[in-house]
Amino acid sequence: MSTEKSVPIDESHARWMNIDNGDGKPYGDGRTEKSNKPSSLEPENTSLLDGNIYDPTMLANIPWSQESQAKFKPGISPTSPGVGLVLRPLRIEDDQKGFLTLLAMLTSVGHVSAEDFRNQFEVMAMCPNSYYVTVIEDVEQGRVVGCATLIVEYKFIHSAGTRGRIEDVVVSDAYRGRQLGKLLLETLTLMGRHNVGCYKMSLECKDSLIKFYEQFGYEKDPGNNYLQQRFKV
Amino acid sequence: MSTEKSVPIDESHARWMNIDNGDGKPYGDGRTEKSNKPSSLEPENTSLLDGNIYDPTMLANIPWSQESQAKFKPGISPTSPGVGLVLRPLRIEDDQKGFLTLLAMLTSVGHVSAEDFRNQFEVMAMCPNSYYVTVIEDVEQGRVVGCATLIVEYKFIHSAGTRGRIEDVVVSDAYRGRQLGKLLLETLTLMGRHNVGCYKMSLECKDSLIKFYEQFGYEKDPGNNYLQQRFKV
Repeated sequence: MSTEKSVPIDESHARWMNIDNGDGKPYGDGRTEKSNKPSSLEPENTSLLDGNIYDPTMLANIPWSQESQAKFKPGISPTSPGVGLVLRPLRIEDDQKGFLTLLAMLTSVGHVSAEDFRNQFEVMAMCPNSYYVTVIEDVEQGRVVGCATLIVEYKFIHSAGTRGRIEDVVVSDAYRGRQLGKLLLETLTLMGRHNVGCYKMSLECKDSLIKFYEQFGYEKDPGNNYLQQRFKV
Repeated sequence: MSTEKSVPIDESHARWMNIDNGDGKPYGDGRTEKSNKPSSLEPENTSLLDGNIYDPTMLANIPWSQESQAKFKPGISPTSPGVGLVLRPLRIEDDQKGFLTLLAMLTSVGHVSAEDFRNQFEVMAMCPNSYYVTVIEDVEQGRVVGCATLIVEYKFIHSAGTRGRIEDVVVSDAYRGRQLGKLLLETLTLMGRHNVGCYKMSLECKDSLIKFYEQFGYEKDPGNNYLQQRFKV
């Protein structure tokens, strides 16, 4: 889809959102490298992001065969998730493909208008390399049937590193038994570790799901506690 | 630096980072409101952000006297944190005021050059209303002596809501006993709840700190587990 040379993905996001570099001119050839992000984050073309919440080529660059820890039978992968299915970044029209209905199987979604969805999508997309909202679509049905998100948080600690979190994992009941939750988790865990370069990844889960998440390397951290509070909004 | 009327803070961040709205023109008067954020997030003037990681006027707008849950003796507040001290957003020159040295009291910071610090600061600032990195400065010493961060995560669930997390809380040993950790926690918890409008806030902490965090309303969530894994980077 592209013949342009690589630019740091930070700036490809920036271009998509029409950010410039402060002098009124877009970054061009011969520019000084500003980012300290690993070169593996450099996509081929900024136009690839168009309508996607992150660069879809990242999914092809996950070191799946070398690093995948979970066992898949039959062997599926981010680029071959199963017959009739595609694994891809969330797209800005996915509220029309049942994405919110799917999330409602997980927790309360409430009223999210088309405009709300688009606004939230755009805010997420403005955050450079932060919201890896990933979906599985049944392409024949035109329906989103599974999703999970890798959120990346920028830090000053750990050499100004990044920390990843897995959030909002759900697979449609009708698609259970096809290893799709496993596929989403392994994909986002490898992406966080190898493509983004997170020094730590974490998630919160119910007691009954600890075993499921352990197969991807997650474990309880003895002496560390998760505390929370909820508010009416 | 500006005399323009108020705009949503999303866009004030955007302007500071030289984002435009895609048609090459900055947002002007008479524009259609795009954001669904509460109007309390609208600062008076985009120049207030200049050099700050978030709008410092937010700290004056926290409903402190009405909502503060923790007990302070003597009574301090975000705007009166104690003699010789100022509580404020992280500023882009704070690496020169010992911010990284302070973080090293908490965990490994490693080598973070002035350029690394600035790059990371700028990436955080590009994320609209997301990184509320807050510090306490001893103004006579010109040193950052305490810090904590409220991270806001955008969601599609909960009416396209926001979730807050408290991260990287540390107060310099020499300033213990001045209620500064308490002040930072109460400030960021109220900010997350009332000013940002988070439906949930959470944090991870060691066993010995559970009691400390409970005074701000945080508690264990029975049946919910925190899992993690760490990587060498």
